[in-house]
Amino acid sequence: MAGNSFGTLFKLTTFGESHGKAIGGIIDGCPAGLTIDFDAIETEMNRRKPGQSKIVTQRKEPDTVQFLSGIFEGKTTGTPIGFMIENSNQKSKDYSHIKDSYRPSHADLTYDQKYGHRDYRGGGRSSARETASRVAAGAIAKQLLKPISITAYTSSVGTLKLDKPYTDVDFSEIENNPVRVADSKMAVEMENYIKHIRKQGDTVGGTVTCVIKNVPMGLGEPVFDKLHAELGKAMLSINAVKGFEYGSGFKGTTMTGSQHNDEINPDHTTKTNFSGGIQGGISNGMDIYFNVAFKPVATIMQSQPTINKEGDNVTMEGKGRHDPCVVPRAVPIVEAMAALVLADFWMRDKVSTL
Amino acid sequence: MAGNSFGTLFKLTTFGESHGKAIGGIIDGCPAGLTIDFDAIETEMNRRKPGQSKIVTQRKEPDTVQFLSGIFEGKTTGTPIGFMIENSNQKSKDYSHIKDSYRPSHADLTYDQKYGHRDYRGGGRSSARETASRVAAGAIAKQLLKPISITAYTSSVGTLKLDKPYTDVDFSEIENNPVRVADSKMAVEMENYIKHIRKQGDTVGGTVTCVIKNVPMGLGEPVFDKLHAELGKAMLSINAVKGFEYGSGFKGTTMTGSQHNDEINPDHTTKTNFSGGIQGGISNGMDIYFNVAFKPVATIMQSQPTINKEGDNVTMEGKGRHDPCVVPRAVPIVEAMAALVLADFWMRDKVSTL
Amino acid sequence: MAGNSFGTLFKLTTFGESHGKAIGGIIDGCPAGLTIDFDAIETEMNRRKPGQSKIVTQRKEPDTVQFLSGIFEGKTTGTPIGFMIENSNQKSKDYSHIKDSYRPSHADLTYDQKYGHRDYRGGGRSSARETASRVAAGAIAKQLLKPISITAYTSSVGTLKLDKPYTDVDFSEIENNPVRVADSKMAVEMENYIKHIRKQGDTVGGTVTCVIKNVPMGLGEPVFDKLHAELGKAMLSINAVKGFEYGSGFKGTTMTGSQHNDEINPDHTTKTNFSGGIQGGISNGMDIYFNVAFKPVATIMQSQPTINKEGDNVTMEGKGRHDPCVVPRAVPIVEAMAALVLADFWMRDKVSTL
Amino acid sequence: MAGNSFGTLFKLTTFGESHGKAIGGIIDGCPAGLTIDFDAIETEMNRRKPGQSKIVTQRKEPDTVQFLSGIFEGKTTGTPIGFMIENSNQKSKDYSHIKDSYRPSHADLTYDQKYGHRDYRGGGRSSARETASRVAAGAIAKQLLKPISITAYTSSVGTLKLDKPYTDVDFSEIENNPVRVADSKMAVEMENYIKHIRKQGDTVGGTVTCVIKNVPMGLGEPVFDKLHAELGKAMLSINAVKGFEYGSGFKGTTMTGSQHNDEINPDHTTKTNFSGGIQGGISNGMDIYFNVAFKPVATIMQSQPTINKEGDNVTMEGKGRHDPCVVPRAVPIVEAMAALVLADFWMRDKVSTL
Repeated sequence: MAGNSFGTLFKLTTFGESHGKAIGGIIDGCPAGLTIDFDAIETEMNRRKPGQSKIVTQRKEPDTVQFLSGIFEGKTTGTPIGFMIENSNQKSKDYSHIKDSYRPSHADLTYDQKYGHRDYRGGGRSSARETASRVAAGAIAKQLLKPISITAYTSSVGTLKLDKPYTDVDFSEIENNPVRVADSKMAVEMENYIKHIRKQGDTVGGTVTCVIKNVPMGLGEPVFDKLHAELGKAMLSINAVKGFEYGSGFKGTTMTGSQHNDEINPDHTTKTNFSGGIQGGISNGMDIYFNVAFKPVATIMQSQPTINKEGDNVTMEGKGRHDPCVVPRAVPIVEAMAALVLADFWMRDKVSTL
Repeated sequence: MAGNSFGTLFKLTTFGESHGKAIGGIIDGCPAGLTIDFDAIETEMNRRKPGQSKIVTQRKEPDTVQFLSGIFEGKTTGTPIGFMIENSNQKSKDYSHIKDSYRPSHADLTYDQKYGHRDYRGGGRSSARETASRVAAGAIAKQLLKPISITAYTSSVGTLKLDKPYTDVDFSEIENNPVRVADSKMAVEMENYIKHIRKQGDTVGGTVTCVIKNVPMGLGEPVFDKLHAELGKAMLSINAVKGFEYGSGFKGTTMTGSQHNDEINPDHTTKTNFSGGIQGGISNGMDIYFNVAFKPVATIMQSQPTINKEGDNVTMEGKGRHDPCVVPRAVPIVEAMAALVLADFWMRDKVSTL
Repeated sequence: MAGNSFGTLFKLTTFGESHGKAIGGIIDGCPAGLTIDFDAIETEMNRRKPGQSKIVTQRKEPDTVQFLSGIFEGKTTGTPIGFMIENSNQKSKDYSHIKDSYRPSHADLTYDQKYGHRDYRGGGRSSARETASRVAAGAIAKQLLKPISITAYTSSVGTLKLDKPYTDVDFSEIENNPVRVADSKMAVEMENYIKHIRKQGDTVGGTVTCVIKNVPMGLGEPVFDKLHAELGKAMLSINAVKGFEYGSGFKGTTMTGSQHNDEINPDHTTKTNFSGGIQGGISNGMDIYFNVAFKPVATIMQSQPTINKEGDNVTMEGKGRHDPCVVPRAVPIVEAMAALVLADFWMRDKVSTL
Repeated sequence: MAGNSFGTLFKLTTFGESHGKAIGGIIDGCPAGLTIDFDAIETEMNRRKPGQSKIVTQRKEPDTVQFLSGIFEGKTTGTPIGFMIENSNQKSKDYSHIKDSYRPSHADLTYDQKYGHRDYRGGGRSSARETASRVAAGAIAKQLLKPISITAYTSSVGTLKLDKPYTDVDFSEIENNPVRVADSKMAVEMENYIKHIRKQGDTVGGTVTCVIKNVPMGLGEPVFDKLHAELGKAMLSINAVKGFEYGSGFKGTTMTGSQHNDEINPDHTTKTNFSGGIQGGISNGMDIYFNVAFKPVATIMQSQPTINKEGDNVTMEGKGRHDPCVVPRAVPIVEAMAALVLADFWMRDKVSTL
C-alpha cells in the first residue's frame, strides 16, 4: 500500500534512498527458464547513468547491478530476483542547505508533512536515483518480451520540437547523439540549447516519444487496468512527468469520429492508427505509441527564495551536479517502465482463457 | 488481476455487461460510521444517465442504484457495500450487425481475439454503461472526502476551447447548460456545434478539466503510486480517454526551471501552482487540476467499411441512440474517478505514520 | 484489505448480511470459455441450505443463485461473474434480544468494539449465511478444476469418531445419510446423538475430513503461499473452525524422520503419503487430505448469563432455529473452499514458467 | 502471485536461496517514526541461528542483518526497509548427491516438476534458511506492536509432551534450556531424547505453543481474513509445519456449546477462554494461544532408497549438519510470524472506522 511496487504478476518492488547504503529491488513473478543477458542489462544501466555525456549531470556512479538470487546457471528459477546497486560516493556530501529548508517544487516539504521524519540527503527516496532499479528490472522485462521492441526518443526540448510522426523518423539515430533525439540535425540544435540553459544555471523540460512494435493482439485488461491506463500510470510515476497521451492524444479531441475511426483490414491491421494500437484497453497488434511530458528539473543553479522548517524566509543556492534537462536520461527509463507494463500484461494474458 | 477493481484500501470492484441483467459492484473498505446521503448519490447518477438533455443519447434508463449490504440504519458498517443497477430495457434489441462484424475503433475485435467468446450485445463489458457503477461508488467516496471539493467541467468540444485557466471560470455555470461548460457564452456555441455534428451522423471529441480544492497535505504515496499517477490511470481507464496532464502539463515542458518552480510561502502555500498541487507524488495543499482528453465516439450514424468474423469486407451502418459527444456525460465520471482516487489515498495516509 | 476477498487470480469477493436484501459476490478472474453447469451449482447450494434434513436448522431459505453477468450463452466470457442470493424471509424477525446484549462466544461484542456500528439482525455479516456465496463460487471452481475431485465428509461428531483412514471409507455413503459421514453404521449413531443434543437445547462440535484426488504435480507457490497454508487459511476462515491439519498432522509430530519420509517410486508416486500430497508447499500428485475442527455452535437453546451494552449482567435465551451441529452442512463449504484454493493455484501455475 | 510476500499493509517480501550470495527482503509499509532497536533484532537472529547449542545443527552462520534503506538516524522513514543477510560459507560444498536425485519428503521433485530449473544447492529456495529473513522482519514487527507480548515455547518433542495449559507454565524457563521448553524438568528429558535421536542419525517432530498477551480488542478482519485464519496460514507457511489449532482446538470439537461458550464479564473479559482470544475472527482482548505441529526433519543421516532424474532407483546418504529436531529453532520463527500477522492487522485496524 505504500506504493513501492509496480505490476501484479511480474512485480517489481524497489527500496532505497539516494544516499543510503544501496538501492535495489525484488522482481517477483519472473517465470522460470528465462536466460538472462547480463550485458544487455549493463547497457541499459549505462544509458541511464550519470556522467555519460556533457549535457547530463557530471556525477560519477558506476551503477553496477548485483544480482543476489533467483538466477542460477544463467537462467531464472521462478524464485524472486533480488538485486542491489550500491551508492558508491554517498558519504562526503554536505546537505545542511536542504536539511532544514524546503527546495521549491521538490518533495522536501510534502515528505516532511506526510512522514514527519525523512532522509533528506540528496532527496532521499524522492530522488530520481530510484529509477536505476526500474531500469535494471525493465532490462529483464525486455528480455522476457522478445520479439516486442520498445523504442523511446527525445521528441522535444523546451520549444524545440521534432515535428514529425514517429513513422517518419530514423530510430537508428537515437543513440548517435547525447540528446537521444531521432534526428541528427535536431540533435545539434537541442544539444546547444541544453548547454546554453546549463550555462545560465537553469533547466528546461521536454517530451519523450515511445513506440512499441510487434505487440501481439490481446494484451491489456479492459475496464480499470486498460493497457494505456497502466502505461499512463507507469509514465506518470517517473520523476518530473506532467502528462501522457497515446495514439491521437490531445489532438484527437478536435477530430470527428468519421475522421478518427481506424478502418479494419481483412488481416486485422487498420488503415490508420489513431487508436495507438489499443482498443478498449487491449492491444490490437498495431504499433503502440505515446508521448510523455517532463517538466524542467527543479534544482537550478540560481539563488531562489524559499522557507525553512521554522517558516522563515530564506534564500537557497543550488548545489551539486544536476541535469540541465532530464529528457536524455529519461529515455531509457520510459522504455523500462513500458517494458514492465507489457511484461505484466504478457503474464496476465496467460490466464484470460482456459 | 482481470482488471475489474480500482483502489487498494477503498476498493471498488465492478461487474456487468451493457445488456445483461444488471451491472453493479462492491465497495470494500469504506470505513464504518459514514452517514450515507442517498439523494446525493441519485443526483450524481442523474448527471451521468442517458436522456438527460437533447445533446446526449436519447436512450431511457432510470439507473436506480439498489444497495444490498454494508449500510444499516443509514450508516456504513465497515462491511462490503454491494450494489446493483438493473439494465431495464435490454431485451428487445437487434444486435445481428455487431454479432459477426467488428465496429471500427471499438473493442469488438480485441475482445474476440483475447477471450474467444464475448457478450456482443451493446458492446457488453466494453460499453461505457459500466461507468454507472463508478459514479455510484464515486458518490460515496465524495461523501467520505468532505470537505474536499471535486469539480469537473467541459473545457473543449472539438476545436471550441474555453481558453481560460480554471481560476478565471465560474463553476456555478457548469450545471446551467447541457454541455457542462463553465461559461454561458461558450455553452451556446458548443451546444450548437454538437447538434450540428449529430445531424451529420458524426461525433466529436473534447476535453474535461477537473479541479480539486481543500485537499490536505500528505495524500499520495511516492514512487509508483504517486497521486497524479493514480489520477492519470483513473482517467485513462474511462472509455474514450486518450490523454491526461496535470498542473503545467504539456505546456510546462517548454518552460525553464526558474519559471516553473513554485515559490513556497511561510504558510506552506505556493505563489504559483505549476505543480498542480502535487510534489513528489504527494499533495501539497494547493489546488489539484488536470485535463482529460476524450476522442470522438466511435459509433457514428454513417455507413463505414469494416470486416466480419470471416475476414470479408462488409459495410456497417450505425444503429441505436448514441452520444454525438461524450464529454458532457463524462464530467460526472471524471469527478467520480477522482473521488475514488482521493478516497483511497485518504485511507492509505492513515497508515503512513505511527 | 477489509478481508472480503479470497484468492488472487481466481478471486471471490463476497458481500451481504444475514438479514439485508441479499448476499452475493463477484468472481473475478474466471477464465473465458468455461461451460457452466447450473444444475451442479444448485446441487451444491442444496447441500448447504437450511431445512434439508431433521438434524439441521429448520429455517426455510431457497438459496437460489441469480447470475447477473460474466456468463453468456452458457459460457464464461472472462469478465467478472456477479451473483446474488436474495434473503427471502428476513423481515419479520425480532432481534431485540441481540441488539443490545452480547451473545457469548459470538462476534457481537468484537464487531461492536471494532466498528462501533453493526447490523445485529441475525448476526449480520458474521452469520454463516455468508458461506452460501462461497458455495456458489466454489461450485464454479469445481467445474474449472475437472478432473480433480474434492470430497469431504463428517469424520467425527463430539466424541463419536469414524476411526479409519480415508483410504478405508466408502465415499458413496456420504450423501446417503444426513450427517454426511462416510459410514452407514456410524451415520445412525451420529444422527441419534445430534438429535439427543438438540433435545437438550445444546450443540456439539465435530470434524470434517477432505480428500482431493487427481491433483496434477506443481500446484502451490512455495514460501508464504504454500498449498497447505492457503488450504489452512481457507478452512480457518469458515465460521466455527478451530483447527486444521494435513497429511500426518498432529500425530506426525510423534514420528521419526525414518518413519515419516515418503519413499519415492520411479513413477513419482510415493510408497506412503504422510506428506499429504504436498511437498515444500507444492502438490506432488498424491492424494491431498486434511482434517478440519469445528467447535460447537455458540447459539444454544438454553438460558445463559451475559452482559448488555451498558455492561449490566443479563440473561439471554436462545431463539430461532439453529443447527445443533454445524458439521453436516459444513461439508459442502469445506469442499467449496478447497475448490477455491485449488482453482487459484491452477491459474497461478500457468505463469510459473515461460 | 509467486507467493514471496506476506501481509498487506505491513508487507514483507523475501528473496534468496540457501547458497546464493545473500538472502533478504523488503518490508514495505512500516510506518514512519518507529525507533529501531538493532540489538533486539540481533537477539532474535541469534535465537534462530545454527550452532547455538548442541542439539541443533552445528553449521556456523553469523546471520548478521544489514539494513540498506528505510531507517534514518535510528528511526523508520515510512519508505521500504531493504535488508540483506549474506550467505557466508556457501561456496565449498558438494551437492552432487542432490543435484540429480530427489530426497524423500523434500521439495526437490516438486520444484523440478513445477519450474523445470532449480537451484539445488542446499535446497535452494525451499531451504528453511529463508526463515532468517522472517525473523529479521518479525523483530521489527514486534517493536511496532509494543506492548503486545508474543511468547512461544516447545510443548512437545516426539511423544514427550508438556502436558499443562499455558497458564500453568513458567515462561521465564524458556530461554534457560536449549529445547526452549517452558519447564526445567521436561527440558532435560527432551534434550536427552533429541541427543538419542541424533545418535541414531534420525530426526523427530514436535509442537510449539504460542501465547499472545495484551492484544487490544478489534484486531482481525472478519470473513476471509479472520485473525486466526491468517495466524494459521502464517504458521503453515513455516517449513515442516503440518497442523495448527487455536483456543480449544481439536479437543474443542468434543465439547458441547454449553461447556464451550465463554461467559462475558462486565469488563468485557470472559470467564473461560476456549475461544482463544478471538471471536468472529476479531481479537476480544483475551490471551490468544495456539499450537503448531512440526513433522520430523526429512534429512536423516541414514541411507534411504529414492530415485534420480532418470527415474532409476538409487540410494541416498544424508550429508552435512542438520537439525535432529526443528522445534527449538522454530520457536523464534513462530513468534516472528505471529508478529508479522499482528503488525499487519494493527495497521489494517486503523482504517476500519472514520
